[in-house]
Amino acid sequence: MAASYTVTGIDGVPLVEPGDDLAFLLISAVDAQAVRPVDGDIFVIAQKVVSKAEGRLVALSSIEPSPEAQRLAAETNKEPRHVEVILRESREVVRSRRDVIIVEHRLGYVLANAGVDRSNVAGAVDDETVLLLPEDPDASADALKDRFDAHWKCSVGIVIADSVGRAWRLGSVGIAIGAAGVAALRDHRGDRDLFGRAMESAIACPVDAIASAATLAMGEADEGVPAAHVRGIPCGLPTPARTINRSKSEDMFR
Amino acid sequence: MAASYTVTGIDGVPLVEPGDDLAFLLISAVDAQAVRPVDGDIFVIAQKVVSKAEGRLVALSSIEPSPEAQRLAAETNKEPRHVEVILRESREVVRSRRDVIIVEHRLGYVLANAGVDRSNVAGAVDDETVLLLPEDPDASADALKDRFDAHWKCSVGIVIADSVGRAWRLGSVGIAIGAAGVAALRDHRGDRDLFGRAMESAIACPVDAIASAATLAMGEADEGVPAAHVRGIPCGLPTPARTINRSKSEDMFR
Repeated sequence: MAASYTVTGIDGVPLVEPGDDLAFLLISAVDAQAVRPVDGDIFVIAQKVVSKAEGRLVALSSIEPSPEAQRLAAETNKEPRHVEVILRESREVVRSRRDVIIVEHRLGYVLANAGVDRSNVAGAVDDETVLLLPEDPDASADALKDRFDAHWKCSVGIVIADSVGRAWRLGSVGIAIGAAGVAALRDHRGDRDLFGRAMESAIACPVDAIASAATLAMGEADEGVPAAHVRGIPCGLPTPARTINRSKSEDMFR
Repeated sequence: MAASYTVTGIDGVPLVEPGDDLAFLLISAVDAQAVRPVDGDIFVIAQKVVSKAEGRLVALSSIEPSPEAQRLAAETNKEPRHVEVILRESREVVRSRRDVIIVEHRLGYVLANAGVDRSNVAGAVDDETVLLLPEDPDASADALKDRFDAHWKCSVGIVIADSVGRAWRLGSVGIAIGAAGVAALRDHRGDRDLFGRAMESAIACPVDAIASAATLAMGEADEGVPAAHVRGIPCGLPTPARTINRSKSEDMFR
């Protein structure tokens, strides 16, 4: 019998507000769902609820756009104060054109709008509030793991997932922007294939695959399923998600 | 109770040889595993076994490298005949440097080595045989779906998956290079978020997420698990995998 695993969305999580104890809210929802976590289970948590609990909201009324933000806003047809927030979250702009700003985030992630989001944010209906990525998503994952492990008396993996666009291919997929207790990358180089030949180039990114798998159970828009429970995937040797970022000097697409 | 789904590797598939009836081999392995497919189940199948069954093997001894292939082979430190095969499978070289050739495949996929692979290929131990992508992976998926649907008297989804590297991030993840009976992309634009605000940019690529999810149950090297069964994910409105390819004129990273 081959390997099998299960992905279950965690619902019943109330709307998260700044300052909320996210670990408590998630633990309560999991316990209410009669999932009993065991060693090696992985929880994938949407970036948005982590950011909200950490109070990573910015009121655009508090923002004064710089001349650079005004210039980029004009080029891209975006809101100048939103662009200013994006620039403050970024090391550099990688590409820009109408409706699109792709940056290297200060944490090393290459993504649109520095992950600064206007949807599913309370108050955003009047376009006045935006949500940043967590300050340090790997640290956020570590903190959630400590709370989960203590509550359930086992060792779980934590993945903080965002949905991002990609070069070359349409449509967003999930990636891991934070991880604890789970391998971000797995190096198969030197493993033997079915014919005993060493694999040529085989570094895999299981934690991005886990994030993508979880988004299939979490939905995108109004489903209100901010987390998923994954059982049956080996966690591997834990490494933080930031190790997935390719350095600029090694990246042919920057 | 939130949505839940299950991914199960299909083992017990014998080594696939050119001309083999892959649908029969997979059906037999599934039936032996006591999985009973039902409407909406999705089967993810590794590109390599599809290519092998379709006889997409090329003996390098039959290849005469062109001057362009010889030049590119010298630049990238690759085997000139291997490079010639890569170029024949490609529309253009997108990037190249030592050990790396990234192309736009004739089918529109941007990927390393045009997907031409030397590992897990019988005979490849002496470096003489390489394996191309299927001639038309969406058509391959259609044909497998016809056979599976007829055998199990239900309508299943088929995804043909490959593992590919990415811009900006280390490590490979699964993508769909062929699909039948399942939505390649899903457009959430106009959906309302939790606060009733229209989603700004929300085209998702569920079929790549499904491919990534399946690779977690299929392994990379010598596990010999060439397919996975997925139950519990909505198939959506069927569209072929080729629709995921971003056109060059719309792509900021070519």
